[in-house]
Amino acid sequence: MPELRKDPIVGRWVIIATERVRRPRDFGRREPPPPRTFCPLCPGHEAETPPEVFAYRDGPNATADGPEWRVRVVPNKFPALRIEGDLERRGHGVYDLMNGVGAHEVIIESPEHRLGLADLPAAAVADVLRAYRARIVDLRGDGRFRSVLVFKNHGAEAGATLAHPHSQLIATPVVPVAVADELHGARAYHDYRERCLFCDIVQQETTERVRIVAENERMVAFAPFASRFPFELWVLPRRHCAAFELVDDAELAAFADGLAGVLRLLRDALDDPPYNLVLHSAPFGAEESPSYHWHLEILPKLGGLAGFELSSGFHINSVPPEDAARTLREHASS
Amino acid sequence: MPELRKDPIVGRWVIIATERVRRPRDFGRREPPPPRTFCPLCPGHEAETPPEVFAYRDGPNATADGPEWRVRVVPNKFPALRIEGDLERRGHGVYDLMNGVGAHEVIIESPEHRLGLADLPAAAVADVLRAYRARIVDLRGDGRFRSVLVFKNHGAEAGATLAHPHSQLIATPVVPVAVADELHGARAYHDYRERCLFCDIVQQETTERVRIVAENERMVAFAPFASRFPFELWVLPRRHCAAFELVDDAELAAFADGLAGVLRLLRDALDDPPYNLVLHSAPFGAEESPSYHWHLEILPKLGGLAGFELSSGFHINSVPPEDAARTLREHASS
Repeated sequence: MPELRKDPIVGRWVIIATERVRRPRDFGRREPPPPRTFCPLCPGHEAETPPEVFAYRDGPNATADGPEWRVRVVPNKFPALRIEGDLERRGHGVYDLMNGVGAHEVIIESPEHRLGLADLPAAAVADVLRAYRARIVDLRGDGRFRSVLVFKNHGAEAGATLAHPHSQLIATPVVPVAVADELHGARAYHDYRERCLFCDIVQQETTERVRIVAENERMVAFAPFASRFPFELWVLPRRHCAAFELVDDAELAAFADGLAGVLRLLRDALDDPPYNLVLHSAPFGAEESPSYHWHLEILPKLGGLAGFELSSGFHINSVPPEDAARTLREHASS
Repeated sequence: MPELRKDPIVGRWVIIATERVRRPRDFGRREPPPPRTFCPLCPGHEAETPPEVFAYRDGPNATADGPEWRVRVVPNKFPALRIEGDLERRGHGVYDLMNGVGAHEVIIESPEHRLGLADLPAAAVADVLRAYRARIVDLRGDGRFRSVLVFKNHGAEAGATLAHPHSQLIATPVVPVAVADELHGARAYHDYRERCLFCDIVQQETTERVRIVAENERMVAFAPFASRFPFELWVLPRRHCAAFELVDDAELAAFADGLAGVLRLLRDALDDPPYNLVLHSAPFGAEESPSYHWHLEILPKLGGLAGFELSSGFHINSVPPEDAARTLREHASS
């Protein structure tokens, strides 16, 4: 059973696999895996995945784990955490750990193997977001979990190991440190000003307009002021809301429409770059927070990380966010 | 002039280059640069770098910027920050920024182009650490700076753009967020227990011995309990000390001897993996902190990052640190 271990200094939780690794050679530099010819996520191959936990289907003959689906959610065949078992928190000297209980699911975004999220129509992107929401609502009912991390790795350089478009979801008994840090900072701002920092940022960005990339009546996308990476983008709902799963259908459809446009812009302006997309949302129990504001972060992988950023938290970004936003806006209007 | 911009939510400082980027194509996926045939860091090519700010030289004919040196420190020819100018902090709506004042230097670790830090004898590794120390002490005299980040990218996959063995140093008017988070966590522990958390960790690791990789009378190297990456290693001095630049020559020599052994182990057991090495040391003014403890973090790049870690702070590590440490120990004794 994997373990969740907490760094005692900064409070970062890490999932540690506990299967013993066999030979030292297993650790050496690996050859990239051979290209797959068989896709376990394609329609008709439903038996290759664990039974689905959710799907959107059309047609009179649609049955669970059958081939007619638009979005399909299945447990990860090689999960980082295990869904069975009670939560056991314990200490070990200065360290804290718990058994690795959690859900690890794959959201198959489309039956089309060759389409990316950016290639899907807005209604299909909305289906993907609705599937995220449905799974979060379901997992919230499991008292062992405190938060759900939803993320997408697009392109091999961004960590995708299967080409078929998919997102992943990890429900954990802990809060990811990046969200915890945001909650902390946003609460401190709210204590002082009695306003949501994210709402204030949206206000400033939509007034200044130099970092705005796209917007509609429900969402705003911009290159953040202190962008860590070239073309880093954040997509926020205009309306204050701490938890993604509280979004209603109308807002979700408009948000999906805006998000689809942003992803197309990235694809077209930057030659379909690899990227990571991560949903930051309030942990369970903090859904009504007046200080936190859910959002998506999109981190293109254009240059390659220098490496020291991971251990220092200090980033050098060679593209000012104002230039990134202008480039994307110009591409949109050309 | 570059800018230092602060993320208003989590307090992360980012260096933002401000030279305008020309064409959208510049942002697209780039081909890897052609292999260099000319090395600007090799002896005899001293005129290719800015004039040196520090060097260790032998021999009667050794002159500054001449070819006879063991370690040489030069300003980065393409610095992320600029050394000239007064520090101007200012606000812009909800945002904070300052002009990008700082030092960015390259520590050339050896005249030998083909040797890595792991290939150098312990005395040469000690020279490199002494050069770090000398530069930090010198930069501490500049009232504009609050901390110095020293790091090394080994191998192209870890971000190295020049093959010649070198480290880098960035002196900044801000504290890197990873060090700030550690300072904060360590202070909270000290407030509660009146002990240094790092000293307690060293105590527990040297007692349990399951994660220990190497040690001598002055240093301990181990795979940290909540390792983010396979074969992540931390190297700590046994003696409590917050700031690296306060280390004396005897301690530094013994530490270098231990570090050289650890780097050789990594090289031999894992087929010379790419890695990042980062020095975490107390910022200026906190050198006497009873709660902080300087250390080196070594992050091998074995698997490749899934990507979402950057935006979530949540890591999945497929190699338990106990297995990593055992593998390295067995290699050492074989």
